[in-house]
Amino acid sequence: MDLELKLKELGIELPATPAPVAAYVPAVIDRGAVRTSGQLPLENGELISMGLCGTAAVTEERAYAAARQCALNALAAAAQTAGGIDKLKRVIKVVGFVASTPDFFAQPRVVNGASDVLTELFGTPHARSAVGVAALPLNATVEVEVEFELA
Amino acid sequence: MDLELKLKELGIELPATPAPVAAYVPAVIDRGAVRTSGQLPLENGELISMGLCGTAAVTEERAYAAARQCALNALAAAAQTAGGIDKLKRVIKVVGFVASTPDFFAQPRVVNGASDVLTELFGTPHARSAVGVAALPLNATVEVEVEFELA
Amino acid sequence: MDLELKLKELGIELPATPAPVAAYVPAVIDRGAVRTSGQLPLENGELISMGLCGTAAVTEERAYAAARQCALNALAAAAQTAGGIDKLKRVIKVVGFVASTPDFFAQPRVVNGASDVLTELFGTPHARSAVGVAALPLNATVEVEVEFELA
Repeated sequence: MDLELKLKELGIELPATPAPVAAYVPAVIDRGAVRTSGQLPLENGELISMGLCGTAAVTEERAYAAARQCALNALAAAAQTAGGIDKLKRVIKVVGFVASTPDFFAQPRVVNGASDVLTELFGTPHARSAVGVAALPLNATVEVEVEFELA
Repeated sequence: MDLELKLKELGIELPATPAPVAAYVPAVIDRGAVRTSGQLPLENGELISMGLCGTAAVTEERAYAAARQCALNALAAAAQTAGGIDKLKRVIKVVGFVASTPDFFAQPRVVNGASDVLTELFGTPHARSAVGVAALPLNATVEVEVEFELA
Repeated sequence: MDLELKLKELGIELPATPAPVAAYVPAVIDRGAVRTSGQLPLENGELISMGLCGTAAVTEERAYAAARQCALNALAAAAQTAGGIDKLKRVIKVVGFVASTPDFFAQPRVVNGASDVLTELFGTPHARSAVGVAALPLNATVEVEVEFELA
């Protein structure tokens, strides 16, 4: 599988790796895997979705797009850390944190924004947890961390 | 240790593996371990506890039972993925997400529902985190992910 | 690197390992790593910060100090489990759960309390996620889990 080619086919341009918002790095190599830090839905330095799911301010479509952006940022961070996207063999695990009001229960549909694009790219299944949290850094709607197996 | 026998002794029948509620799989094999997706307290396709801990709708006993059911679903998913329950050597780590009001602080007692049954079965200790989250998929009261070492 | 020496230089005395508040252990060894349970900001058996960030009761400074204490408890637990602090080679990953009101977004600055002391000690970067949760065990302000690579 040529992931560079697949990205082109899907019309996806990998984002520049956003700088972490604090004292850590975007991803580390760990015993044959690359583990990313929690990624926010930043695009060109701006959050593409702020606020809680379950409020009028955030549609499910916007939250889905935010989760997808988080996954692309995770992919970019992992590729940079691994020394190229083709060093990434498959996705092992995704954790999606969705900023949610107490009556919003569609976290799985939101985090599909991350899972769908990763599955399109890698063609292999991954494990996943999706939960609704009270608030996220910078008022982001979604935060996603991804663990990749190295080739 | 014969886990099949131990399950029988404890009168536990492993549930069928619930289908994931979105674009992922119930568990993956990862470098000598099996890592489950976040499991909800589904029993025969129905959630056995909905709503937030700290509200009148959810007693601590019910939440404990829900965490136990999540753990059994995780065990079933891991056993299926590993090719049999006796391929599972021990529990490494449990993460328990408990849907909570901001004044509910007994997440550890709730997640004991998962830890207790896993400890009864495997007889070995595991690491664990338990946190109170704003909301969970399908309005579940608890979500639990488990990591098992392969034999 | 002599971590014992570094601790002395920084004037840090490792805490006694707090007993887990439920049915699990403070840390486990897992395929060349030590993974801690979620650690609360306990010092001599007392929480040094209770309540949610975003309320008047908890300043950001106090929450930062609480995250630092969580990290020291994680370090103590990992050192005890590994058979000495010098068995710990580096920090792989930190996850920080910050009890937050829905309008508190400075989780990264809070969890820096953990990252800063670990980076001072180990001198190597780690991956990290920081999220705002509804409530934590015993009404703690912060819970932190840490994964260390073994020497």
